[in-house]
Amino acid sequence: MDKSVFLEDLDAFAYREVLSSGESIVLIPVGSLEQHGPHLPLGTDTLLSSRFAEGVANRLGALVAEPIAYGYKSQQKSGGGNHLSGTTSLDGATLIGVARNLVKSFLNQGVRHVVFVNGHFENYQFLYEGIDLALEDLGVKPGAEQSVLLLSYWDFVSQDTLAKVYPDGFPGWEIEHGGVLETSLMLHLEPARVGMDRLVDGPAAVLPRFDRLPVVPERTPATGCLSSAAGSSAAKGELLYRQVVEDLAMDLARELNSERNGPATAPPSADYAQ
Amino acid sequence: MDKSVFLEDLDAFAYREVLSSGESIVLIPVGSLEQHGPHLPLGTDTLLSSRFAEGVANRLGALVAEPIAYGYKSQQKSGGGNHLSGTTSLDGATLIGVARNLVKSFLNQGVRHVVFVNGHFENYQFLYEGIDLALEDLGVKPGAEQSVLLLSYWDFVSQDTLAKVYPDGFPGWEIEHGGVLETSLMLHLEPARVGMDRLVDGPAAVLPRFDRLPVVPERTPATGCLSSAAGSSAAKGELLYRQVVEDLAMDLARELNSERNGPATAPPSADYAQ
Amino acid sequence: MDKSVFLEDLDAFAYREVLSSGESIVLIPVGSLEQHGPHLPLGTDTLLSSRFAEGVANRLGALVAEPIAYGYKSQQKSGGGNHLSGTTSLDGATLIGVARNLVKSFLNQGVRHVVFVNGHFENYQFLYEGIDLALEDLGVKPGAEQSVLLLSYWDFVSQDTLAKVYPDGFPGWEIEHGGVLETSLMLHLEPARVGMDRLVDGPAAVLPRFDRLPVVPERTPATGCLSSAAGSSAAKGELLYRQVVEDLAMDLARELNSERNGPATAPPSADYAQ
Amino acid sequence: MDKSVFLEDLDAFAYREVLSSGESIVLIPVGSLEQHGPHLPLGTDTLLSSRFAEGVANRLGALVAEPIAYGYKSQQKSGGGNHLSGTTSLDGATLIGVARNLVKSFLNQGVRHVVFVNGHFENYQFLYEGIDLALEDLGVKPGAEQSVLLLSYWDFVSQDTLAKVYPDGFPGWEIEHGGVLETSLMLHLEPARVGMDRLVDGPAAVLPRFDRLPVVPERTPATGCLSSAAGSSAAKGELLYRQVVEDLAMDLARELNSERNGPATAPPSADYAQ
Amino acid sequence: MDKSVFLEDLDAFAYREVLSSGESIVLIPVGSLEQHGPHLPLGTDTLLSSRFAEGVANRLGALVAEPIAYGYKSQQKSGGGNHLSGTTSLDGATLIGVARNLVKSFLNQGVRHVVFVNGHFENYQFLYEGIDLALEDLGVKPGAEQSVLLLSYWDFVSQDTLAKVYPDGFPGWEIEHGGVLETSLMLHLEPARVGMDRLVDGPAAVLPRFDRLPVVPERTPATGCLSSAAGSSAAKGELLYRQVVEDLAMDLARELNSERNGPATAPPSADYAQ
Amino acid sequence: MDKSVFLEDLDAFAYREVLSSGESIVLIPVGSLEQHGPHLPLGTDTLLSSRFAEGVANRLGALVAEPIAYGYKSQQKSGGGNHLSGTTSLDGATLIGVARNLVKSFLNQGVRHVVFVNGHFENYQFLYEGIDLALEDLGVKPGAEQSVLLLSYWDFVSQDTLAKVYPDGFPGWEIEHGGVLETSLMLHLEPARVGMDRLVDGPAAVLPRFDRLPVVPERTPATGCLSSAAGSSAAKGELLYRQVVEDLAMDLARELNSERNGPATAPPSADYAQ
Repeated sequence: MDKSVFLEDLDAFAYREVLSSGESIVLIPVGSLEQHGPHLPLGTDTLLSSRFAEGVANRLGALVAEPIAYGYKSQQKSGGGNHLSGTTSLDGATLIGVARNLVKSFLNQGVRHVVFVNGHFENYQFLYEGIDLALEDLGVKPGAEQSVLLLSYWDFVSQDTLAKVYPDGFPGWEIEHGGVLETSLMLHLEPARVGMDRLVDGPAAVLPRFDRLPVVPERTPATGCLSSAAGSSAAKGELLYRQVVEDLAMDLARELNSERNGPATAPPSADYAQ
Repeated sequence: MDKSVFLEDLDAFAYREVLSSGESIVLIPVGSLEQHGPHLPLGTDTLLSSRFAEGVANRLGALVAEPIAYGYKSQQKSGGGNHLSGTTSLDGATLIGVARNLVKSFLNQGVRHVVFVNGHFENYQFLYEGIDLALEDLGVKPGAEQSVLLLSYWDFVSQDTLAKVYPDGFPGWEIEHGGVLETSLMLHLEPARVGMDRLVDGPAAVLPRFDRLPVVPERTPATGCLSSAAGSSAAKGELLYRQVVEDLAMDLARELNSERNGPATAPPSADYAQ
Repeated sequence: MDKSVFLEDLDAFAYREVLSSGESIVLIPVGSLEQHGPHLPLGTDTLLSSRFAEGVANRLGALVAEPIAYGYKSQQKSGGGNHLSGTTSLDGATLIGVARNLVKSFLNQGVRHVVFVNGHFENYQFLYEGIDLALEDLGVKPGAEQSVLLLSYWDFVSQDTLAKVYPDGFPGWEIEHGGVLETSLMLHLEPARVGMDRLVDGPAAVLPRFDRLPVVPERTPATGCLSSAAGSSAAKGELLYRQVVEDLAMDLARELNSERNGPATAPPSADYAQ
Repeated sequence: MDKSVFLEDLDAFAYREVLSSGESIVLIPVGSLEQHGPHLPLGTDTLLSSRFAEGVANRLGALVAEPIAYGYKSQQKSGGGNHLSGTTSLDGATLIGVARNLVKSFLNQGVRHVVFVNGHFENYQFLYEGIDLALEDLGVKPGAEQSVLLLSYWDFVSQDTLAKVYPDGFPGWEIEHGGVLETSLMLHLEPARVGMDRLVDGPAAVLPRFDRLPVVPERTPATGCLSSAAGSSAAKGELLYRQVVEDLAMDLARELNSERNGPATAPPSADYAQ
Repeated sequence: MDKSVFLEDLDAFAYREVLSSGESIVLIPVGSLEQHGPHLPLGTDTLLSSRFAEGVANRLGALVAEPIAYGYKSQQKSGGGNHLSGTTSLDGATLIGVARNLVKSFLNQGVRHVVFVNGHFENYQFLYEGIDLALEDLGVKPGAEQSVLLLSYWDFVSQDTLAKVYPDGFPGWEIEHGGVLETSLMLHLEPARVGMDRLVDGPAAVLPRFDRLPVVPERTPATGCLSSAAGSSAAKGELLYRQVVEDLAMDLARELNSERNGPATAPPSADYAQ
Repeated sequence: MDKSVFLEDLDAFAYREVLSSGESIVLIPVGSLEQHGPHLPLGTDTLLSSRFAEGVANRLGALVAEPIAYGYKSQQKSGGGNHLSGTTSLDGATLIGVARNLVKSFLNQGVRHVVFVNGHFENYQFLYEGIDLALEDLGVKPGAEQSVLLLSYWDFVSQDTLAKVYPDGFPGWEIEHGGVLETSLMLHLEPARVGMDRLVDGPAAVLPRFDRLPVVPERTPATGCLSSAAGSSAAKGELLYRQVVEDLAMDLARELNSERNGPATAPPSADYAQ
């Protein structure tokens, strides 16, 4: 069999060797199946979180588990809304259950650290709850050797990178749905899956500061995107991907290696204070 | 009986008169029982969300329901962590259940609009899920007359106000826990409950960009606050309170009155684009 | 800050001092938001259970946590029915969840005894289940130092008091909804919230010995009360309040102090055998 | 096949004939598997509720479904406590689920009225919740043709009967666990299952007015009974059984037959006012 | 009291004596209330699993608990479908809950081995899940003294018996619903409950290899049986009953007695390899 | 963008075109992450179910959704047991939730038929329950235009194929875990992921006819496979794959096309009677 960072490609005996090191790290990408406008595929979030996990795993010698490919309901303010065809979602209890089960299963097998790499805004709190419940189930408490980390990849985009990717100013993560960041990353990583000729330019969506349910469908632009992807490029995607993978790998390495001497109290990298 | 905007003070017959108008609005404050450092009381979030709801209700002729006084688990990055004594929390399923039940109960009684006024960062997604499930239970779909709104009061602080409250730059909402905003508001609204002599100054907490569970307790400052409250004043609190109540009331009035002519597709106030 | 028996008023450090005694008692009032006829406010049950808890806390040096302000569904035989506007309820699973979370949260913080003080008939069994599940989660078994108590305040009304409050005979607790007991207590504790001029006299409701669902709405009197409040007085309310607070405080003191020498096997007070 | 009131004995085609009348009534006995002292079998509650259901079914031409043979956890104040071997219980969510499923299943088949005949004190509120949720699932609202009734058989014991069964005064239903009522009924209905020679006499248990968890085991008498069964007799059992079956059948007949002319608003029998 | 293998007939003290041996085995029959054609009663599955449990208990000195009398939804491919009147079912969560509660309750009381004896095809996986969750709750892990077994009685029918009962070839367990096996067993064990004159002969149902929902009702034969019961006889029933009870008792004895010397790794009987 | 049968590769607008036909079919592969011995990767079940879905989709013009990549707990009798490292599982409630959410989401979007293509034995009943609950939520009843199908791919292996793949006789599906069928299919479809040099030959596992929990670990062969993969070949894999894809596509075409004239009552293919 080929070497692979993907857990699904390993046989059980090869995997058990990894576990026996006592230092195993399993990254779980979390995405969504969600409309991303006319120019990006439904699987964008799952694909991107998987690619970030793969990049980090290659640097850390970690493994990448099968992604959680369906995410929490798209909210109008961050994803256009769950009423849009193509958006196929899990409710909160189910996503909590998936995260809880995976944490319990991996920690019970002896994985040292589980890291959720999130690529869909709305997932975060439900993953957090699933992790927390799993640790309660297992009796894993502060000071334990095993740990679970949860992050969204965009939180590792540096100020420098942001300034280069958005020379006219950054519109905010919440409306980065089918916008310049995701489109550039896709152009770099999966160009055959991007339809730049279908891209529709226009002003960013202006949404209320409250969530309203049921949604007022007309508030979502017809494209389903909350900000324009005009100005996207493979070069920006490469910059984003490289910088994030590098910083993410460095932070994780510092955090999870520091285990050997007890958990660090100082933050892993200076960039935390950004 | 006195006039009151608080639902708990009304008798059932007076309440039914309000319902019979067909335009009733019920605001539900949502807070927490959570450590807020040595200078603020455990009930800070519930108290503040209740006061914002009261202010808005007075302007709109709306009612304020009993607050949801216990919130979702405090996370280290936004509240210091759930391991700190004084922090008394609900898990995700329970908070979802509370929101779901209240929405169903109020809409079944004929309330036209329910508005959750949130004052504890970690609650938001679970309230959203509770609302969404309730509307599914009830079969309330886009175009319906009834609606539910969800907001956090700090999202209505304007750029102007922010610049005045934080003359040295705004540190970010996530670490505004026991900091200048909450302390100033408490000094304005409930000065007898603030112990300014117990306030501890110091640099803001610098936390990783990931959540780690179980938490590394040492990463939370000893005070339990994530940023210093030094520089707080009743005057800043008054400014914050007045501006937010005014904008919030205006946005809600525009949003919910526009009902009569069908839901608006343009956002209620120019400030949305901030 | 002022001294207060209310947990929400304490800061975390003051609260931790209480915990450090090893003898802390936290009382949790449990009420409802429920129609109580034309003369009593919707928040009657929450208000009364909070006041009983406050009275007992003052005598015992205990703390009072934020009330559980929404209760289980009103049943026709004890509260007129859940179909009546103003009655805003939680389902069983949610109320169980709230009680379970609060018990776990408080006992994990080191609270020695948690006491639920119930003021809404229908809550009782769901609170019991929440407590029982929490203790199973925590592994707290007979012989443990920590305990949870559950009671309804009316079970501490003595035969003597009953005879004075109901000189013509006591109609039974189940139909004491908006009747002489609750009205008298409100007249004593919160007279501005009682509309005696709106009180409607009439015979007590006569309901079947079974519950029927869906309810037959006409079986509930138009007032929503199951027995008349005629004959209520502030003096009766004062008698009720004083006697119950005194007995309740005495029973709890005997029960929870006896801890030091192992749990008592004899009942705390002679009145148990009433 | 023999004629039988027991649903389990009917074949599907015979059952469908009953349904086709449009007037079918299905009674569901609900009991427990619970210690009942040294003289009564563990299945006492299930057996008694089944026999009451059978007696009523014979009079009404109704059917008796399989009993719910495991009940909610025994509470110390009403059943001695769930820690006693022999007591084998369901938690609240499961009992709610059983009731909810049975109501949905029977009403979906076209049963006109479902009647739960309860024989274990602690079950009541969980059955109620299961019924209420089922009706919400089905959209059955006030005015519907179908209904569900819930009752405990002891609520149909008349004052006359009580006076004869307890010539020295009635100790109260809560501590009637393995006492004169249950023992007399068993002596009448199932004498071979009663071990009168093993009966232990003694004063009734005197328990606090609160529930305490975890229980203090010593508060339950060694027998597990809360009141003495001395004075029980088959004659008393026969009296109890006959009077209750008669009144119960009469009340149900009046309630469920009145359907034809719309639901009655006056209570079925004068005894309601007892 | 009479001797009995039925737990419901024992008093608590007699039961505790059994527990004190440290070798107690409790068998739990699991059936259904389900249409079984025009010739068999609705309670067939519960009755048969109870009789198998009784037969085995008599041989092993084990006890038989009250059956789980309602089962998981009938599937069209194995039971004709859940849409057929007479079929009264639990959903998955509820059946999981019942099994989980019973396992926890019995193991907590000190029962050494719990054995579920299943008589309704669709129950199996939900019982398995309930058992697994209960053992997780209790912390019972490989190597523990206590265990839970789960089996369907038809898996113990030997090849020899099959050949005799189905001389023209065995049609498969899935469509053995109201067929020769169940009918013969009923003719042997409960002849008064079988209506052989109502039996309808005909070819076995031919169903797709997929499940389809909602069901296409016409695919189930009008009788509700998936294969004909023609050819059933009490003699076949006796053969089936005796052989299964004997093999089942032998396997359980070997399995559960081997405990004393540690669990066996070799399978109990040669017939395993059938 | 390339043409693709994979939903994740489509953009939302292309997907909506498919939906607008009114005849859309979405296939959802369901697998597991599970040890499959030393010669097959952990992702075998997910990979195989995905490939079968892909093959069928190509023939039917259907779409393939992201697979459910984690399955229900491995049982010792069919997968070696859930205690084996590499096996990473969901509990029943979570898998039910995933299936329920996906069915609701797809049917709400207007998908005409959803087909679950299962590749992991233990998943089946939980998927069934998820589907059934979703249809209840949606109110989809017999006669509806939309439907959901559930199947395991091995149920479409014909007798002819079986005889060729297992010339010495077929050992049964339950112990086909890492055996000749799965290994041959992998050799045909994904040869680089098979380590034939690591294959261990030996007799099939002989397991009891009951499930025992906690498992007796020694009963599972050291390889984790329940039957030997010796005799596997890419040619057998090709035969299996082609025959199953062809039959499955034919059955689905007949079943789902017959919709236009109302559902068929005769089974789609003669092979049903195998």
